Amino acid sequence: MPDFVRTVPAGDNRERQVCSTCQYVAYENPKIVVGSVVVEDGRVLLCRRAIEPRSGFWTLPAGYMEMHETTAEGARREALEEAGADIELEGVLALYDVSRIGQVQVMYKARFATPGIEAGEESLEVRMFGWDEIPWDDLAFPTVRWALNAWRDLGSAPLGAPAGNPVDDRRGTRRIDAVPAL
Amino acid sequence: MPDFVRTVPAGDNRERQVCSTCQYVAYENPKIVVGSVVVEDGRVLLCRRAIEPRSGFWTLPAGYMEMHETTAEGARREALEEAGADIELEGVLALYDVSRIGQVQVMYKARFATPGIEAGEESLEVRMFGWDEIPWDDLAFPTVRWALNAWRDLGSAPLGAPAGNPVDDRRGTRRIDAVPAL
Repeated sequence: MPDFVRTVPAGDNRERQVCSTCQYVAYENPKIVVGSVVVEDGRVLLCRRAIEPRSGFWTLPAGYMEMHETTAEGARREALEEAGADIELEGVLALYDVSRIGQVQVMYKARFATPGIEAGEESLEVRMFGWDEIPWDDLAFPTVRWALNAWRDLGSAPLGAPAGNPVDDRRGTRRIDAVPAL
Repeated sequence: MPDFVRTVPAGDNRERQVCSTCQYVAYENPKIVVGSVVVEDGRVLLCRRAIEPRSGFWTLPAGYMEMHETTAEGARREALEEAGADIELEGVLALYDVSRIGQVQVMYKARFATPGIEAGEESLEVRMFGWDEIPWDDLAFPTVRWALNAWRDLGSAPLGAPAGNPVDDRRGTRRIDAVPAL
């Protein structure tokens, strides 16, 4: 098993994780999460997570972007994997920094390309929610709340400058349990 | 040294790079490049690269986002490191996919917070260019050309929906030498 130590590799100016067995430098860079707010008739698609972290809580279809795909392809793949949803992207709704855990989230606004949703392996259930039905106290992550608010704030206007972090968490450092209920 | 083989780790559904010496799984996810189009009096800041790839060619101040910073902080850091520029960000100008090499680029529009530019360690020289002075044939990467065009297309309008890849390279798969000169 790898045995990492923190040290500054030759030619670098930052400490990195270096395996003391094989000298591999495990560069840690922020990861990109791609997801979507899929809307139909004023209702939004949410998935109840079947996996940790936050198993049992509700989230938007979203996940880590993979190599050799675009952000748009990743968002469509996640909607298909997690919610059996074939979606069409309308544009970028929001761009969030979650610096606490090294994430940048690209959230698209989307509609269904073909009808139908079905829970995937990583979801316990999937459902469409009207605004007043959203399970605010059981959302998985702060960014889910932020993106849902961005959708509401947009209303029926065309997409413009992407929404960003809320003013009370500009850098994305708060934990979900520090987010007050609505 | 690490000796990587491609195999599907337990519980995963994709081939990953796994070190046959220490079993470390080197997940490869796309990386985020953060940069800026810094404008003053109709001129834009470019840096001539002192490092590979594309040493000697002109680029926007931009680089890999680091852990524990936001995209905005990363863009400001890169402008400072590469061009000695203290900048203030106005908003997101463009979001580009470069799927060929697993990059997502977040390009901000910016102005100087305090005056002055100076070549950093990774730059041979830094200069402000009017539109007609831009060294189109000596740009380092396709995304530099795209972002400069996005700046021109925006003109004096307020920032709106971020620009994306051009229609002839939606996925960002072309090499720089496949990009025709203007």
